[in-house]
Order: sequence, then structure tokens, then C-alpha cells
Amino acid sequence: MPIKRMIEGLNEFHDNYFISHREMFEQLSQGQSPEVLFVTSSDSRIDPCLITQSQPGELFVIRNVGNIIPAHGASPSAEAAAVEYAVHGLGIRDIVICGHSHCGAMRGLLQIGNLAQQMPLVYDWLKNNAESTRRLVMDNYPGYSHEKLLKIAIEQNVLTQIENLETHPVIRSKLHAGKLNLHAWIYEIETGEVFAYDAANGQFKLLENRPFPVPNPLIAAHSDSLR
Amino acid sequence: MPIKRMIEGLNEFHDNYFISHREMFEQLSQGQSPEVLFVTSSDSRIDPCLITQSQPGELFVIRNVGNIIPAHGASPSAEAAAVEYAVHGLGIRDIVICGHSHCGAMRGLLQIGNLAQQMPLVYDWLKNNAESTRRLVMDNYPGYSHEKLLKIAIEQNVLTQIENLETHPVIRSKLHAGKLNLHAWIYEIETGEVFAYDAANGQFKLLENRPFPVPNPLIAAHSDSLR
Amino acid sequence: MPIKRMIEGLNEFHDNYFISHREMFEQLSQGQSPEVLFVTSSDSRIDPCLITQSQPGELFVIRNVGNIIPAHGASPSAEAAAVEYAVHGLGIRDIVICGHSHCGAMRGLLQIGNLAQQMPLVYDWLKNNAESTRRLVMDNYPGYSHEKLLKIAIEQNVLTQIENLETHPVIRSKLHAGKLNLHAWIYEIETGEVFAYDAANGQFKLLENRPFPVPNPLIAAHSDSLR
Amino acid sequence: MPIKRMIEGLNEFHDNYFISHREMFEQLSQGQSPEVLFVTSSDSRIDPCLITQSQPGELFVIRNVGNIIPAHGASPSAEAAAVEYAVHGLGIRDIVICGHSHCGAMRGLLQIGNLAQQMPLVYDWLKNNAESTRRLVMDNYPGYSHEKLLKIAIEQNVLTQIENLETHPVIRSKLHAGKLNLHAWIYEIETGEVFAYDAANGQFKLLENRPFPVPNPLIAAHSDSLR
Amino acid sequence: MPIKRMIEGLNEFHDNYFISHREMFEQLSQGQSPEVLFVTSSDSRIDPCLITQSQPGELFVIRNVGNIIPAHGASPSAEAAAVEYAVHGLGIRDIVICGHSHCGAMRGLLQIGNLAQQMPLVYDWLKNNAESTRRLVMDNYPGYSHEKLLKIAIEQNVLTQIENLETHPVIRSKLHAGKLNLHAWIYEIETGEVFAYDAANGQFKLLENRPFPVPNPLIAAHSDSLR
Amino acid sequence: MPIKRMIEGLNEFHDNYFISHREMFEQLSQGQSPEVLFVTSSDSRIDPCLITQSQPGELFVIRNVGNIIPAHGASPSAEAAAVEYAVHGLGIRDIVICGHSHCGAMRGLLQIGNLAQQMPLVYDWLKNNAESTRRLVMDNYPGYSHEKLLKIAIEQNVLTQIENLETHPVIRSKLHAGKLNLHAWIYEIETGEVFAYDAANGQFKLLENRPFPVPNPLIAAHSDSLR
Ligand SMILES: [Zn+2]
Ligand SMILES: [Zn+2]
Ligand SMILES: [Zn+2]
Ligand SMILES: [Zn+2]
Ligand SMILES: [Zn+2]
Ligand SMILES: [Zn+2]
Repeated sequence: MPIKRMIEGLNEFHDNYFISHREMFEQLSQGQSPEVLFVTSSDSRIDPCLITQSQPGELFVIRNVGNIIPAHGASPSAEAAAVEYAVHGLGIRDIVICGHSHCGAMRGLLQIGNLAQQMPLVYDWLKNNAESTRRLVMDNYPGYSHEKLLKIAIEQNVLTQIENLETHPVIRSKLHAGKLNLHAWIYEIETGEVFAYDAANGQFKLLENRPFPVPNPLIAAHSDSLR
Repeated sequence: MPIKRMIEGLNEFHDNYFISHREMFEQLSQGQSPEVLFVTSSDSRIDPCLITQSQPGELFVIRNVGNIIPAHGASPSAEAAAVEYAVHGLGIRDIVICGHSHCGAMRGLLQIGNLAQQMPLVYDWLKNNAESTRRLVMDNYPGYSHEKLLKIAIEQNVLTQIENLETHPVIRSKLHAGKLNLHAWIYEIETGEVFAYDAANGQFKLLENRPFPVPNPLIAAHSDSLR
Repeated sequence: MPIKRMIEGLNEFHDNYFISHREMFEQLSQGQSPEVLFVTSSDSRIDPCLITQSQPGELFVIRNVGNIIPAHGASPSAEAAAVEYAVHGLGIRDIVICGHSHCGAMRGLLQIGNLAQQMPLVYDWLKNNAESTRRLVMDNYPGYSHEKLLKIAIEQNVLTQIENLETHPVIRSKLHAGKLNLHAWIYEIETGEVFAYDAANGQFKLLENRPFPVPNPLIAAHSDSLR
Repeated sequence: MPIKRMIEGLNEFHDNYFISHREMFEQLSQGQSPEVLFVTSSDSRIDPCLITQSQPGELFVIRNVGNIIPAHGASPSAEAAAVEYAVHGLGIRDIVICGHSHCGAMRGLLQIGNLAQQMPLVYDWLKNNAESTRRLVMDNYPGYSHEKLLKIAIEQNVLTQIENLETHPVIRSKLHAGKLNLHAWIYEIETGEVFAYDAANGQFKLLENRPFPVPNPLIAAHSDSLR
Repeated sequence: MPIKRMIEGLNEFHDNYFISHREMFEQLSQGQSPEVLFVTSSDSRIDPCLITQSQPGELFVIRNVGNIIPAHGASPSAEAAAVEYAVHGLGIRDIVICGHSHCGAMRGLLQIGNLAQQMPLVYDWLKNNAESTRRLVMDNYPGYSHEKLLKIAIEQNVLTQIENLETHPVIRSKLHAGKLNLHAWIYEIETGEVFAYDAANGQFKLLENRPFPVPNPLIAAHSDSLR
Repeated sequence: MPIKRMIEGLNEFHDNYFISHREMFEQLSQGQSPEVLFVTSSDSRIDPCLITQSQPGELFVIRNVGNIIPAHGASPSAEAAAVEYAVHGLGIRDIVICGHSHCGAMRGLLQIGNLAQQMPLVYDWLKNNAESTRRLVMDNYPGYSHEKLLKIAIEQNVLTQIENLETHPVIRSKLHAGKLNLHAWIYEIETGEVFAYDAANGQFKLLENRPFPVPNPLIAAHSDSLR
């Protein structure tokens, strides 16, 4: 039974990691000051802290089906609250939207007809917030193999969510001030590598040395002094 | 700049952990089969995999402001999609809602007036989905100190979210079949300990050996043979 | 023409019942203090005052298609307003959700595909607020006859609405204080009998002498001193 | 304890009224065919069957706070479902919206500022669906006494709801066909009398002999041959 | 490229019309005081100022797909804002809803099944706000030719929108005060003629000399002294 | 009475312009094929056809309070329908969002507190869809004069709406294909001049010879071959 195993894990964590980092946790209990908002999928194969080797206190994390940020508008969302809290409340200046290979949500998006019957709430979620990705893929890549379409959907979805993110009040205000960087990433489970969207070339590039923040919308690249 | 440091982390992860677990990741890339849905706060001080000592592939994770699950209804939500996907799509049979000490969302909930001006989207999120907690605390604990109220709010919020969770179609169906256990947990940052709600005593108990799943709603404890 | 007949009824009511109870009505015009919120179907065959032999002033009544209480959340509803008014405004401490045999709404719920075309607004209403019942019935009772399924749907719908009710702020606050009892009833048109859900046995029992309030959620039966 | 008394009422109903009308109830269990949809307040002082001297099977009933029918639009409602079911499913041709004197909902509407704090869900309900009444009263009757304003609000609210009702698809279709009559009534608790809106005079008239259906919208009175 | 041509148009406008009406525009820059709210389709073939020979400053204009005004309710809309601004903010006393022949939106409404696949957002818009028209046409005119149905839909849609308009708070308040006139018009592209709904005859009449404001709802024609 | 004058205008239009362009209108009655979607304010001082010297059939037009396009998401809107119809149904490849000097909506946005009381529906509209503009202005330009803030708000609002537009499925798909150009314009009532946003310089430039389409989001300027 998994909960039993988790309880053993809790004990192990406490007796080892916690004991040897007690001071850090005591300090953290005074308050958090993470520098990055990390948005990724609920998928069990992704562990944000592990793949970025982050410590407790470093990443403010949103996890949902499809690493989605609904656009700002009439319908309040969990994601809108988290973005506002991260940027306005915590002063975070870097946001990463991190998709991943073999994403079940994107697989569902490409077969959205079945989904409506089988999992109507997943269907609603994707239809409301990832339809731009689906339409782009369907309109522009007719005749592609399913695996090719999935790869494109995973990439375009990350860019769609960047677009959605840019409609949020706190994001728009900070982008205008040049005080925020957005990053479109994809984690490849099978290689353990992470790629970032490089707008200059319209491609995802392996993250090795330098970041590729997405261009500030409506501001030409060269005029963006912060970067 | 934090993104630089994260890129170093990505490299380190790849060159060490990934290389030494390559086979596991290759297998994971074929599909996931987590056994637990773990719902917790976006708070940077919580690392679900660390505190439960879980490996990639073990926990399907929802993280948002306040570890909240909106009740099922007319407004589709990210959380509804994730719950449906976890239970129907992945066959998960254990769900943990894990709150935590020093929760900024609960602190905001208790000062909800200010919040409406400062962070209107956080306000909307809490007002729509945590008002039951706020009202319960305000009505039943007049005159309590702020820190006492915060502690009660953190506890009651976890129970409120259990209640909300129980309105979801897949949850209700599986609870009826006796095929699902719900767990109300609180993680204490400063002690590294986790407590679970023990309905038999109406208190949160340290998780040491045995779990305390919440009673199946509307079914008396003794008639619940699965447990 | 039915309105003609109703006008005759109005005259008859006035000349007989009203005249002989004039004092009671004058007193009632000063204000109401009902002790029970009675939620039942719009179905014409149910007369709440008749079957409970209640007088004007005794029952605060919600009637809609399917005796449904949407869960608390982002979408405000008529039912949320009535529950809040009853519990907070009028101080009511007993709420009855009363379903009934031969319920057309539940019949529609089991054939929800057709409904979407024929009566799209009934479909929306049931899909948003009774889907938990439908899913539970469909998942757990495959191969049952239509009449069996209808009976189970009617019973489970009452319990689903209890669950929804428990997400409302005023309900949660009063349940916590032990100041509210919820009752899940079913009225059988053909026998004139009313049954209540007895959680201890997981069955509906004829109401003869004692009530069977549903257990306070998340609180074990024995610790619930009020009852 | 009120539930005890209700159970006695259930027994009394069964042993007397039901026994002596057993045949009627057996027939009703085969199906309902009410001729009137009666919309009235949840207020405990109103018993629709009593005041119209109707039998089980005669009135299809909606009861909510303020006898309100939300206009047709993007937000599905309980009332939309009931109207559709009554008119399309049951073939009902007469709809009565029946307000009443001393209505707490209308009293709340006139003090809507306080309401937002005290009973936010009642506030939402009235703001979304009775704001036309409030605005009409506030704009057109400055300086009137509170009791005068309340009387006007009660009257105008019934007319507002007629207007809302007329936006519903099944209503509009049947009105066009001349197969539906709408009635705007007010029940006076203290006199036991019911008044109907007589559009020809712009006043509410005592219902004694003839009904005063509201004019078919957009069709001049004399051209409305059905009436 | 059309934008090139538009820029030439801008220059032409500036050098001719603007120069010769400079004073008028300078005055207009101080503020607007239009006397009419004109609601019409987004259709490129309609130019409201041209067909009514209006000058800048005379018409406050709403243009959308299908010249639709959603009814007042829980979902805020652009149209609700414009109506409120026009009537409350600008004191406008005449509102024209102007449909037109060959309307693509109404054509789509009659084939609403296909629309859901092809243009889901157009479908949502029409389903939420023009379903009353569709149902009326489908129920009452079976067997009619497509072109006949289209003509009827165009006419009935204008009346449906009048009905929706009448649910708005500012409209209802001003109608009560007798300070507002509503007009249901149809522009015929091929003849250059405009027709208005004459409720006295239930027909659309050519607008030549006198207007045909729609009757004030719930007030019989003769009692409407303002007109 | 303004309607009288409009009827004279209708006659004048018919007897002059229509008669001399009869053939054009007959052809237009066969179908429309506009090349531009023009989004502008409802403000009476703007006549899109006049300022661009366009003929009937050339501009597909959306007019609302504040020339706003809600972002794509859970709440369907009139604007979403019009954008989808223009781009998918009519094949339009150029979209202009045209704000204007002295905009009452933007003035209201900067005083949004008062607005909530006076015109709650205008408030909702702006809060849901122009809050990004308000926040940007308030956060980044403290201490500026009201007229300066108004000018900045008018400009930034046009850019906010471009951002919102870019979240729409058909827009994103066509931008990806390089088949769509977006234009951010401002019309100055007092000078009769129109300015376009030139992203290369981050400024609005007088439109004299060449257009300044906004850069394709997430694609660096030089790689945008279509332009
Ligand atoms: Zn995924
Ligand atoms: Zn937290
Ligand atoms: Zn029923
Ligand atoms: Zn009432
Ligand atoms: Zn049209
Ligand atoms: Zn404007």
C-alpha cells in the first residue's frame, strides 16, 4: 500500500535530511523568498527540484495537467492567483513554463473528441486553455505522423501558455518595466535534457550555458535593455 | 541570476542523477503509473518528493495557492481535470491533500479585505474556494490570537478541500465502490513532521506508523469494510 | 382553463381557511421563523406542507428540478442564496433534502445523451450538478435494469446533494459547531411513505419514530455529542 | 425538535390523507400532467397548494429566494431547467410568478450594501437577477418611505421576472405561437388576497373573477387573438 | 495590400474631410453627446453612418456578430457595458437594433450543428444569445424553405434582442419612467431600404415618415403617453 | 427627435447614394469579402468608414466600449465569435485595433473605484479585460498628471488588446503560418491623424506611407519573412 511506503519516507526524511538541515528549515519557517516561478505538468515523472537541483525555498511551483496558465479574463483561476502571488507578493522575476516529452495532456488534446466522453473535465480544461495549440497543429501540419504532431503540440503548448501568461496584469506591468523574464522550456524524460525556446531561430535549443528568455512582446529584441 | 544557477543544476542533474538512473528514466518514458495523487501548496518550502522520499514516477502532483480543490460544478477547473485524470485515467486510489504550517494563502484568507485591493486574483481564488474555511474560523473562534487562528485555518482548509473533493464525479463513484482513500495531511516546516487528520478523535496526529484515511462520507466507520 | 380554477381556489382559500386563521396570518405578516429548510423537486405530485402536515410559517422551501443544491464555488446560484438565508438569516438548524420516486429529472439523468438535444437547459443543470450521481450509478451498477438504476439514482442523488450542501460556508461553519442536522429523505408517491438515509447501515429506512440525520462529515459518529 | 414533529406529520398524512386518496396517488405515480408552473418565494409563510386550493399533481413549482427567473444566457440555472422542463417536457401553458408582501429578499435588495458583507451569496443572487428592480426603484422613487419602496420593489420584481422569463427559448417560441400565458401575481400575507398585474391600467388588481395575463411582448394587445 | 489602401484613405480623409470640418472635430474632442445607440452587425456591407447619413458625434455604435445584446445576468458582457454607458453615462433615449438581409450569423444559427465543429466560438455566442430565435423558428415554421426561414430568423432575432435589452437595469428603469424608446429595424442590402417592427400589426414596415418604437413592455399601447 | 432625423437620413441615403451605387449593393447582397477586421470604440466621434475612406464591403467591424478583445478562455464572448468568423469564415488577414484620443472608457478605467458604483457593468467589462492596462499604468507611472496617464492608458490598452487577441485559436494558428498581420492604431480626434505602434522603437508613429504591423509574438523580427 503506497501510503504505508510514504509514511516510511516521511520518517526517513525527518531522521536524515531534516535533521541535517534543521537550521535551513527553521530559517525557512520565517518566510519564503523564491526567485523562480516554475510551472510544470502534474505528471509523476517530473520532479522540478530534482531536475534543477533546487533546494527547499528556491522554486515557487504550479503543477497542473498540461502546464497551463489560463489567459486573464472573466473566469478567475488557480493559476491567475499563483502568478499574482508570485510576482506581486513575492517579487519573483523569472517564470519558467516547463512542458515535457510524452505528455498525456497533449496526447489527449490531439484526440479531443474521445476525451469529451471519457474525461469530460480534462476535455473542458484543454478546450478552454489549449485550443490555440490544437488548432495551430491541426491547421498547419496536416498529414504528419501522430508522434510528430505530439512533439509539435508539446512545443507549441508551451508557447501558447507564454502568450496566455502575457495577458495577466502583473505580468504585463512587469514586462513593461523590463523587470521580468519568461522562459519556455521542455524537459525530455528519456534523455534527462531540457530545451528552451530560442525565438531568434524559432527553435528549441539545449540549455547548456545561457538562457533563452522569450522576447518581450511588442518590444523589438534590441531595445530590450534588461536582457 | 537564478536561471543561470538552474542551468547549472540541469547539467548537474543530467551528468549525475540521470546518468546513474538512465534505465529508470527510459522505462518511465514508456508511461507513468503513479499510485498517489499529492495535492499541495505552491509554496517554495515544500518539496513533495523530498519529504516523502519518492522517486520520479511515484507521485502525480497538483500544486496551487492553498492546496485547494474547487468543488465540482458549473465552472471547470484545472484541479477537476487533474483529479479526473488521476483517478479515471491513471487508476490512482490514494489522494493526499497536504497543507503546511506558515501558509501565506491561509494568512491572506484571514485578512481577506486587504487582499481584494492588493491581489484581487488571489482574493477571487480564496473567496470562491476557501470561504467555508474562513467562515468556520471567524464564526467559531472569536477572540483567538492571530497565530491560533492561522493554525486552525490551515487545518480546517485541508478538511474543506476534502469536502470539495468528495463532490467530484470520479471521487464519488470510487468512494461508493470503496476503492479510494482520502488523506488530510499537514506538513510542519519547522519540525519536518507530517500530521494526518484522525476523524475518530477530531485531531491531527503525527504520521508515524499507520495512516488515518478520512471516513467515507455518509457511510458509518464500521461499515467501511475496505479499510 | 386552469387559471380560472385557481382563481376560484384563491377565493375559496380566502373565504374559508384564511378567515378562520386570520390571526395566524396577521402574526406571520410580522415575520417568519421557520425551523426547517425543506429542499424538494418541482414535481407537481409533491406537496411538502401536505405530506409533513406543516402549517404556513413552518417550512422554508427550495423547489427545483431534481432537488439539487449546487456545490459552493465560482458560480453563484439560487440555491446557495437560499441556504445562506435559511441558515444565517433565519437560524434554521435542520435541512431536509427530499427526493422522490418516479423522478423525471433522474430519469433524464440516466438518458443524458438524448436530453442534450431535447432539453439543453435541463441537460446543463443535471450535468453540472448531478453528474456525480450518474457516474456512480453507471460505473457501479452495470447491467442493472432501468427501473433498478432509477431507484439507485434517486437515492444516490439525495446523498450527492448532501455532499454538495456540505461545501457551503454557512453549512460547514454550523456543522463544525454541531448546530446543524442534515437529513436525506425520499418520498414514495405510490405508498405515501418517506424514507431516510441511515448511514449506520447504508440504507434508506422508513421514517416512523426517530430521525436519521446524516453523520457529520469528517467527524466520527461517537464524537458528535449534539446528536 | 422540529424533525420529530415532521415525522409525526408524515405518519398523520399517511394514515389519513394518503389512505383516503390512495387511488389518486397510485394514478399520479404513473406520471404527472400539471397545467400550471407556479414560481414563488422560498418564504415559509407561503403554501402554494393551500392558497390556490390545488391538489397533488396540479402545480409544477419553483421556489427560490425572491421568486426569481434568471434571464436566458451564458450561465445555466436551475430555473432555466425547470422552465424548459415545464413548457417543453410537460406542455404547460400557464406560468404564474407570485411575489408576496413582506418579502425578505426585496427588503435585502433595497439595502444591498449591507447584504454583501452579511450574506454574500444572497447578494450575488439578487445583484445578478434583481438589479433591474433595484435600479428602477432607486432611480424613479427618490424620497419615498422604506415601506413604500418595499411595496414598489415587490411589484416591480414580479414584472422584472416576467421580462427575464420572456428571454427563454421555449417561452419565446410558445408566446410567438400564442400558446402560453404569463401571470404576474402578488400574495398579501395579511389579507389572504392575491393581486394580478393588469397591464391595461398599469396596476395590480384583486383576482376575483377573471385573470389578467400580461400582454404578449412586442404584440399589441388587440392583435393577441388567443386571449 | 489592403492596409496600404487604408493608409491612403487616412491621408485622403485628413486632407479633405477633416480639413474642411476641423472646427467640428475640435469641438467633438471636448466630449460626445450622441442621441442614439445604434446596434448592428459586424457585417462589412453595413455602414451605419452612411445609411442614416449621420455625422461624427451622432451615433453611439455597438457592432458584433448578429447585432446581439445578451440578456442581463451573471455573465458580464461588452454589450451590457455599452448599453449602461450609453443610457446612464450619455443620457441616450433612443436605441435601434438593426438587423440586415443576408445575415451570415443567422444563416449559421439555422445550421447550428455544423457550426459547433467549424466555428465553436461563433456557435457559443449564438447558442447563448440567439437560441430563442432558433427555437421559435424551428418550432413554428416546419417545412419552410431555407430562404424563408432565414428571413424569419433575421426578423425574430431583432425582436429577441429587444427582449434581451429590456432585462438590463438601466433600460428597465428608463422604460418605467417613459424616457426611452426602442426600435427594431432591418436593413435590406439589395434595396437600400430599412424596415421597422410595427407591433400594432406584427409586421415590419418600411420606414418612410414615422418611427415605430416597440411597445413599452407590460404597459398597454394606449397608456404609453410619452409616445 | 433624433429618430425623425434618422428616417430623413435613410430616405436621403436611398434616393441618392443607394440609387447611384445600386449595382454595387446588388453585388454585395450576394456575399461579403472584406479584407480587414477593424476593431474600434463605440464612441460616436469615430466613423471607421469615413476615416479610412472605405466603401461598404471593405471593413468587418467590431465596436464596443474601449475597443477591447477579451482573451480566449472559459468565458465565451461576442468578440471571440467575431474574430473567429472574420479569420476562419471570411479569410481576413489584417486586423486593426484602433483606440482613440479622449476615450471615455480609458478615463473610466483610471477612476475604476467610482465606476463600480455608478456603472457596475462598465466596471466589470473593464476590470475583466483592461486590468492589465490599468495595473501597468498605475505601477509604472506614479505621479503623472491625469492627462498624461490617460494618453498612456489609451496607448497601452491597444497593446493589451493585441496581446489578448494573440491568445485566440484562429489568430495563433494564422500567426504561426505567417498569414496574418496585427495593427495597433490610435485615432486622434482633434487632428484627424492616425498613429500606429512601431515596435522597433516602442512608439506610436504617424501613419503616412508604410504600415507598422506588430511583430509576430515569440518570433524575432528578422525571421518574419511575410513582412
Ligand atoms: Zn504532461
Ligand atoms: Zn501555502
Ligand atoms: Zn423529481
Ligand atoms: Zn420572499
Ligand atoms: Zn449579420
Ligand atoms: Zn473610446
